[in-house]
Amino acid sequence: MRGRRRSRLREMVNIVSQPEILSLAGGLPAQEFFPAREYARALEHVLLSDPRALQYGPAFAPLKDHIVELMRERGVDCSASQILLTTGAQQGIRVLTTLLLDPGGEVLTEEITYTGLGQAVGPLRPRHLTVGTDLDSGMEVDEIPALLEDGARPAFIYAIPDAHNPLGVTMAPWKRERLVEVAREYRVPIIEDDPYGFLGYGGEGDGEPDGEPEKNPPPIRALDGEWVFYLGTFSKMIAPALRLGWMVLPADLVDRASIVKEASDLECSALTQRAVAAYLDAGHLPAHLERLRGAYRLRRDAMLGALERFFPKSAAWTRPRGGMFVWVELPPEVNCETLLDEALQKERVAFVPGSAFTVAEGCASNCMRLSFSTCTPDDIEEGVQRLGKLLNRRISNA
Amino acid sequence: MRGRRRSRLREMVNIVSQPEILSLAGGLPAQEFFPAREYARALEHVLLSDPRALQYGPAFAPLKDHIVELMRERGVDCSASQILLTTGAQQGIRVLTTLLLDPGGEVLTEEITYTGLGQAVGPLRPRHLTVGTDLDSGMEVDEIPALLEDGARPAFIYAIPDAHNPLGVTMAPWKRERLVEVAREYRVPIIEDDPYGFLGYGGEGDGEPDGEPEKNPPPIRALDGEWVFYLGTFSKMIAPALRLGWMVLPADLVDRASIVKEASDLECSALTQRAVAAYLDAGHLPAHLERLRGAYRLRRDAMLGALERFFPKSAAWTRPRGGMFVWVELPPEVNCETLLDEALQKERVAFVPGSAFTVAEGCASNCMRLSFSTCTPDDIEEGVQRLGKLLNRRISNA
Repeated sequence: MRGRRRSRLREMVNIVSQPEILSLAGGLPAQEFFPAREYARALEHVLLSDPRALQYGPAFAPLKDHIVELMRERGVDCSASQILLTTGAQQGIRVLTTLLLDPGGEVLTEEITYTGLGQAVGPLRPRHLTVGTDLDSGMEVDEIPALLEDGARPAFIYAIPDAHNPLGVTMAPWKRERLVEVAREYRVPIIEDDPYGFLGYGGEGDGEPDGEPEKNPPPIRALDGEWVFYLGTFSKMIAPALRLGWMVLPADLVDRASIVKEASDLECSALTQRAVAAYLDAGHLPAHLERLRGAYRLRRDAMLGALERFFPKSAAWTRPRGGMFVWVELPPEVNCETLLDEALQKERVAFVPGSAFTVAEGCASNCMRLSFSTCTPDDIEEGVQRLGKLLNRRISNA
Repeated sequence: MRGRRRSRLREMVNIVSQPEILSLAGGLPAQEFFPAREYARALEHVLLSDPRALQYGPAFAPLKDHIVELMRERGVDCSASQILLTTGAQQGIRVLTTLLLDPGGEVLTEEITYTGLGQAVGPLRPRHLTVGTDLDSGMEVDEIPALLEDGARPAFIYAIPDAHNPLGVTMAPWKRERLVEVAREYRVPIIEDDPYGFLGYGGEGDGEPDGEPEKNPPPIRALDGEWVFYLGTFSKMIAPALRLGWMVLPADLVDRASIVKEASDLECSALTQRAVAAYLDAGHLPAHLERLRGAYRLRRDAMLGALERFFPKSAAWTRPRGGMFVWVELPPEVNCETLLDEALQKERVAFVPGSAFTVAEGCASNCMRLSFSTCTPDDIEEGVQRLGKLLNRRISNA
């Protein structure tokens, strides 16, 4: 099944790379905002001034210090000794799951979750325990104790509290607190996967009369340093091609995780570590993030506005406070797999069917993930309008 | 045990980074030859001209074409569809062993081999079957059939045919042929780990009256495309901080390997792929490799000359035709672990004790790995002389 789904996603990558397709399918950050010129300067500076930039070497301490500071700005207290650099957040997932999960063990996730988790744990063939997700407040944390009381002992709870991929929902503060209580009580660690946390840009402005966006809650790691294993990445903040992320772990786990990391690919690029540190030294990041948040906020608003205007009243969707995705639930009779075929052929619009993100087969067939990160507001409006036309026809024919 | 050894190697990294230590311990390429300026130009060109350079994306086809051409120059026929890019050769090892080895399975290696193999397979707790290594002709291939006739069914045979780390030996052509025959007959794949193959620079000039270095034999992959899984890397040819390598696999294995690769860290950096392709496009590599081979040849010659002059007559060592390492066998009563302590304290010279590279405990305690890659010929001579002084004292006292 995973293989088939993967083929479908791959096939889509080929289809949506055709220029005449208007794609709301991608999971990519907007490349027109990549700081290519500043990063080129950082690379040149490092390459011409530091002879160790192309060599093997230990983690670059100034980069870790920057990460400690970035985490502090998000409300997380940690030290450089708790940080382990990774080749993107995906490697963080892979390393942690390798450490925590025995073959045939159990993992606890949401029913609808990031596909990379399934890929990482796949070879160990674990049993997946799942809970639901509320589209306003996130993971149904209160469903967890019942599973654990029944004797389940998952190796970890996997959560994406900020701007969930694919659901777009940000977990409510009370659920974050409750999740930490559960983790402590049952002694089950939480893997907090946070690729989008630095791309939080608040709600749609309702209830905020002076236009100041409501701040997103801090990561779960801010509430607990023992049971929460945090995964961050520069992929969405700066650029995916850095292949640079980090874990914040209890210090006693760093050594064990670094052995797995080393066995996987020895170390992260000394050049990338130094160049990212130089980019951060130069003070580029705050203005860059501000620009990125502003652009994504506009695109998010364009998508939510278009959904309101063009999608059937029977549809519901998430209202993301960050990240790149909106999740749409359609009436149960709508099959988004066949809808996609029709959308590609008749309307030249792409999205990802919800079934691509489910742990169990046959779920979320009436759902879709729409990405607003890579399109202009006009294209988003156009794409949603075309999809709406198809949907309204389907639903009125039903 | 592996943990303890690793700590020892780590401890050594700290010790040998002290500037007053003359280190023959490192496994690093010579950083004074890294093409920093040319690579900086390649990066800048790519960053300012290609908007996909910082994005997620499929493997960069022109880079694969370059790799096909590099392999062709080594005598290997392969196609782009047989190549999978990896985050260094270590990831190649990890991905292949994940695919091939079941938990508790068997692997076949030399008794003395690259430590990264043990790290990669460690979590699967395999049984290690081992054969010896002849210091002139390489792996004792003829020991393999007896193991297989006894019923052993290793998931793979792991070999480093060119400029073995740590042994420095290059496998003789007849052994390469024999190894392929064994692999075919018993249907056991070979993992050919080849980080140093592009750094072959021939023997010491004996038997070559016109000074033309004898060519190294082509990789084992040149003899068989079905049972030989080849791992290459730019780490030693260009620089380790690229974190870029490749596998040459049977086409039907590429898909399965790419799933494991993707689960590990999604993909290799689009930027690095494009920048390395641009560096190769510019035609820099042949002259760079020529310079590198010339420099390493001089250092190798300096080390072999110094060993001849300063080491006891009862010592034996390999005469590498490539790579970065010489392996020294001392009389059995010499313990290289305690010798290292003495060498660090009294003579401020570092090397790696042979026991760091053995599959079984308690072996090779009378052996050492000396690296000639990062020192000038003068420093190499000085370091070998100091070690020789200690050794001669130990042996005459015995």
